[in-house]
Amino acid sequence: MKKMKIIIVGATGTMGKHLTSAFEKEHEIVTVAEKEADILVDITSPESIENLFKQVGSFDALISTAGPTHVGPWKNLTDKEFRKGVDGKMMGQINLVLIGQHYINPKGSFTLITGALTHDPQLNFANASAANGAVEGFVRAAAIELGNGIRINAVSPTVIENSPQYFPFFPGDIPVTMKELEFGFRKSVFGANTGQIIKPH
Amino acid sequence: MKKMKIIIVGATGTMGKHLTSAFEKEHEIVTVAEKEADILVDITSPESIENLFKQVGSFDALISTAGPTHVGPWKNLTDKEFRKGVDGKMMGQINLVLIGQHYINPKGSFTLITGALTHDPQLNFANASAANGAVEGFVRAAAIELGNGIRINAVSPTVIENSPQYFPFFPGDIPVTMKELEFGFRKSVFGANTGQIIKPH
Repeated sequence: MKKMKIIIVGATGTMGKHLTSAFEKEHEIVTVAEKEADILVDITSPESIENLFKQVGSFDALISTAGPTHVGPWKNLTDKEFRKGVDGKMMGQINLVLIGQHYINPKGSFTLITGALTHDPQLNFANASAANGAVEGFVRAAAIELGNGIRINAVSPTVIENSPQYFPFFPGDIPVTMKELEFGFRKSVFGANTGQIIKPH
Repeated sequence: MKKMKIIIVGATGTMGKHLTSAFEKEHEIVTVAEKEADILVDITSPESIENLFKQVGSFDALISTAGPTHVGPWKNLTDKEFRKGVDGKMMGQINLVLIGQHYINPKGSFTLITGALTHDPQLNFANASAANGAVEGFVRAAAIELGNGIRINAVSPTVIENSPQYFPFFPGDIPVTMKELEFGFRKSVFGANTGQIIKPH
């Protein structure tokens, strides 16, 4: 396999750490997070994202596991709380693609993160359901727009095994193992599909 | 059938006009639009939406056909263009529900508008695909949160017969007739389902 230059956004989170560790043996990884990473980025800022790509230059794949959303009681939800997921998980990831497309190598790929909440809602997570749905609609649309063989997919897990603090919010959901999650991203980054929402199990 | 008080947001548009005409024979309709309606509202403003409900008071059903999004070439898309659909079709409709839930009668219903672009993208419409996906994820989440028997659904048509100017952008899509569209809204407003994405044909 050709050695790739892979940007991992959200590299210091539970998923990001696992993916960095899994892929750094064979590929050049650029870690991105708000702190303690190769490049520090605020994904809610298009200027910060532009600055990321200016520093990295060309690359072969971008993986995003960055998904800030508001979690909390429905009755307190207003536009203000909702904007956390709009500016974070939704527009943060969409802007990574809209801006990153001008820096990515031909045949490169973008892999974003969504989640089962798109179709399988849980109490307190309406903001994530909406942000996920937006990203999934965007992924399908971007897939028919991107040129030069550039691909885009999303990985959509339910709760993951290394985040047991979320288990009580996802009754009946069998946690996705870190290996299953990794394989979901492998399918997107090293496979040939585009416009797909990949469920790790 | 009990006479209902129905708010129609986007009442001066192609869909809104048809629905107002179809439902006003049997129900009390409050038309809402940016101009030339019973109540003038800018759905991109939560304050304007709050003001709408303060004027209307309690109601039985809200129908939204209001979906401003950016249509245009992918290569020119930035955060700025994308915000048209985010603040319009997405957050405009979501805020109608987040705010309107405090005014709607028990067993009332919200019916929002999405569209086939969620799952069936077309060139130039990535902003609508994302906004639709967000609204659909939100509808499913809101359905499990709303109390007092209040329901929420979305109607998701492809291009509609009375908007022939859009036909060239939707190759191969059989236009939805105005009657089919009306029946989609009837299913939501007068039926008992919730959390559904209703395809008119």
